[in-house]
Amino acid sequence: MADELHKGLEGVLVAESSLSYIDGDEGKLVYRGYTIEDLAENASYEEVLYLLWHGELPTRAELDAFESEMAAERDIDDAVVDLLRDLVDADEDPMNALRTAVSQLSAYEPEDDADPEDLDASLRKGRRITAKIPTILAAYDRLRRGEDVVEPREDLGHAANFLYMFTGEEPDDVAAETFDMALTLHADHGLNASTFTSMVIASTLADMYSSVTGGIGALSGSLHGGANQDVMELLVEVEESGKDPLQWVDDAIADGLRVPGWGHRVYNVKDPRAVILERKSKDLGNASGEKKWYDIAHDIEQYLIDEKNFDEKGLAPNVDFYSGTVYYQLGIPLDLYTPIFAMSRVGGWVGHVLEYQEDNRLIRPRGRYIGDESNDWTPIDER
Amino acid sequence: MADELHKGLEGVLVAESSLSYIDGDEGKLVYRGYTIEDLAENASYEEVLYLLWHGELPTRAELDAFESEMAAERDIDDAVVDLLRDLVDADEDPMNALRTAVSQLSAYEPEDDADPEDLDASLRKGRRITAKIPTILAAYDRLRRGEDVVEPREDLGHAANFLYMFTGEEPDDVAAETFDMALTLHADHGLNASTFTSMVIASTLADMYSSVTGGIGALSGSLHGGANQDVMELLVEVEESGKDPLQWVDDAIADGLRVPGWGHRVYNVKDPRAVILERKSKDLGNASGEKKWYDIAHDIEQYLIDEKNFDEKGLAPNVDFYSGTVYYQLGIPLDLYTPIFAMSRVGGWVGHVLEYQEDNRLIRPRGRYIGDESNDWTPIDER
Repeated sequence: MADELHKGLEGVLVAESSLSYIDGDEGKLVYRGYTIEDLAENASYEEVLYLLWHGELPTRAELDAFESEMAAERDIDDAVVDLLRDLVDADEDPMNALRTAVSQLSAYEPEDDADPEDLDASLRKGRRITAKIPTILAAYDRLRRGEDVVEPREDLGHAANFLYMFTGEEPDDVAAETFDMALTLHADHGLNASTFTSMVIASTLADMYSSVTGGIGALSGSLHGGANQDVMELLVEVEESGKDPLQWVDDAIADGLRVPGWGHRVYNVKDPRAVILERKSKDLGNASGEKKWYDIAHDIEQYLIDEKNFDEKGLAPNVDFYSGTVYYQLGIPLDLYTPIFAMSRVGGWVGHVLEYQEDNRLIRPRGRYIGDESNDWTPIDER
Repeated sequence: MADELHKGLEGVLVAESSLSYIDGDEGKLVYRGYTIEDLAENASYEEVLYLLWHGELPTRAELDAFESEMAAERDIDDAVVDLLRDLVDADEDPMNALRTAVSQLSAYEPEDDADPEDLDASLRKGRRITAKIPTILAAYDRLRRGEDVVEPREDLGHAANFLYMFTGEEPDDVAAETFDMALTLHADHGLNASTFTSMVIASTLADMYSSVTGGIGALSGSLHGGANQDVMELLVEVEESGKDPLQWVDDAIADGLRVPGWGHRVYNVKDPRAVILERKSKDLGNASGEKKWYDIAHDIEQYLIDEKNFDEKGLAPNVDFYSGTVYYQLGIPLDLYTPIFAMSRVGGWVGHVLEYQEDNRLIRPRGRYIGDESNDWTPIDER
């Protein structure tokens, strides 16, 4: 062990966790023992947050209190809106804007003097951040559209309130439930790179704002959160080309395309979240009468399996392959897909930070030094 | 290996690196083969950055070009100053303010569309961030003192220009050289928690701003960057108590004090940087005629070793034990010590990100699931 190199830490166990379990061979995902299918069907995103952060499903009274607390924390300081306006003026990318705004939120944290080892205070900080992320994203998007910012409403759920602030109109039940379900599906997924980033930061006893800001940064990378946008860009490109979708994909693969939304380090079969999102994408298409996005994605999936043998290469659709088609049908711009992933995954970041800090240990690995052992100093004019 | 838990990743090799090597038994630290003693004595911080980022010491012409490029990149956008003003108004801590301002910088990055795998562009982004951090910190501190922001000067070195912006006056050679040396000593130190954070973020192909922002967050934790401030607070408290310093320390240890600035995961002997800083602290005291801070620190060190047997417990002074006494004699407020650590360590963050991305692999470990295997869904009103 001591001298073995674990690049990427693949398979290395760095912590014990009770939050989520992935069986990559069976295509199974549970949060604290509850299957993702049960949660998607039955639980609201707030209920899932409660489960992840408090360890068990809430009673009605507990959930009511939790929802009220979160709803009361949605407002953001005017200085945050001012910053978002500057960022929009500078044409800043939404994921970077979210990273900066969440970092800025710490200046307005009422418990900023709390001991970082006070886990109850850390949970409340995480809850405040989670409550405010939709407000930040909706404000950012409205500002770049040249529209007035819409204040949050306390009488709507987390998902519905985001859609309300984003569009300025109360969403219908199908839209609100679909978006809520998408948040539930993305809330946690083991020690992925952004969650692990949050944990490494928290292990120094840095506060929750630093951990979540770091998580957003990690999620912004194209090998992590960016694939859902890449998939939808591909589907739009296929559709706009006017070509046969399967021919288009065939040509693109011949040109070296690595199909986004396929394959995952921890799944060997189809990601269970992709199964749920595929069904939801189909339902939305049937309801609206516009099934084209579902159809293109589904046809490509079948073609890649039947004709290109992706399954034999260990490639299967992951969560990103169908999430874009769902968000697209909800009218959400492509470059908000990854920020929406962050809006959900913050639940996992906060949960894993709280769990890790219960028995904290500084995360500090080693590098294998392969550089020069010993160089004599040479004055600059003799080099 | 597969089932062993590596909490804290202690001793786990996650990457190969040519940047810095630590021999914790010999008390030896080298950057690319050059000893920290040679570098502290002979190299400017810019020369060290060049060494870390480009792999070898620069010629005179290379260093001149590098210094000119960095000096030209010191300015920050007015929007960043506006944000700092808001953060000061909200009484934000300087480390959090730095995290937010660095994140904001990406909105003004001229190469923001560069491919994240274009390592030349990433190096330039890292250089811009490094050039601007002193400007941010000096502006923040002047704003909270109610003073006008001082624009950077291109004709001064990195260290001297910071002191100039901070005080409004050109520093004398001793102050500039001392501060430059402190930056050199803190520039890199293997895969510490903040450097590793930057690498995990970069492994997703997130850009340099996300990596550095994450590094700042990790460094803000009291188990990582915060100890230099803790040491100086302790020395000030000892001095203000009017008590005998050794008696004070003895009483505090009896009351449960964990002496800050002692012990380090990778050193079993005195940190070589502490040896250099101790000497510098003494020199500054001799030059000014005010040796009290050096004397208190030194007396406490001897007492802890001779009377409390700290050495037999594997505890020795680390870099933080004397750095505060140096900064204090330069007139720098205590809560800027950790931000100054960031001002220096950004060199290591950028260097390790560039090195890791040369042969990138997503960093995604595993957790050992110890939660419920399978829970049946219970409707909320039946809980």
